[in-house]
Amino acid sequence: MNIIILTHGEWGKYLIESSKMIVGDFRDIYFIPLNPKDTLEEFYKKVFSLVEALNEKVIFITDIAGGTTTNTALKIAYKNKLKVLSGLSAPLLFEVISSIEELENEEVIDEIIKEARDNCKDVLKEILAGGNNE
Amino acid sequence: MNIIILTHGEWGKYLIESSKMIVGDFRDIYFIPLNPKDTLEEFYKKVFSLVEALNEKVIFITDIAGGTTTNTALKIAYKNKLKVLSGLSAPLLFEVISSIEELENEEVIDEIIKEARDNCKDVLKEILAGGNNE
Repeated sequence: MNIIILTHGEWGKYLIESSKMIVGDFRDIYFIPLNPKDTLEEFYKKVFSLVEALNEKVIFITDIAGGTTTNTALKIAYKNKLKVLSGLSAPLLFEVISSIEELENEEVIDEIIKEARDNCKDVLKEILAGGNNE
Repeated sequence: MNIIILTHGEWGKYLIESSKMIVGDFRDIYFIPLNPKDTLEEFYKKVFSLVEALNEKVIFITDIAGGTTTNTALKIAYKNKLKVLSGLSAPLLFEVISSIEELENEEVIDEIIKEARDNCKDVLKEILAGGNNE
């Protein structure tokens, strides 16, 4: 399975680089930025060409649901029954990478989303309330 | 209120840049990367010095709960009763920016976390199930 990261601007590329500080090197990850000068059609074509080149074995991770990155991924995903996970963050990316061999399992995807959501929190409040900071 | 973003590596800086594509320019946001060559003590000192310079009116957003960025923010936050929100993503940052004047309200923080979590999802699955893609 290949991961395609789509973000407004270049930040997804740097998140991938930073992730290697934590989880080590990994392959099968691709990145396409949506730049201010891109037309919607140009962006769509770039993403579609990459999916074709990867023979459709891909999962998208996009930066924000409701945004152009996600909507572009959805157009391609809908036709080809691909996954689109939105709300890119370090924990979401780490969870996807660590489950890369199991991404065709719906329950694994649900668990990835849950873990990423749980990592987004008011940390000190949760500690003071007796929650777990992991 | 000032926002301090802490990430492993430089990606937080680029997320801030990208955010300006979507929400326009904004001030009162600061960024400190944790670089591979930083010692824990060096990183702590950099963050602590910035908090002192900003006169403690800050909210932290960190990349991953359980990581060094978050744990460093927590040390400072605990003493000074500051907020630490983990799981940095585009929706989390946008929500914080759009509520910048109301961040001392606990309910606003809870709503920010909820919105950011909700934006992290299996998008096509939710659409096909009749959910809302906003």
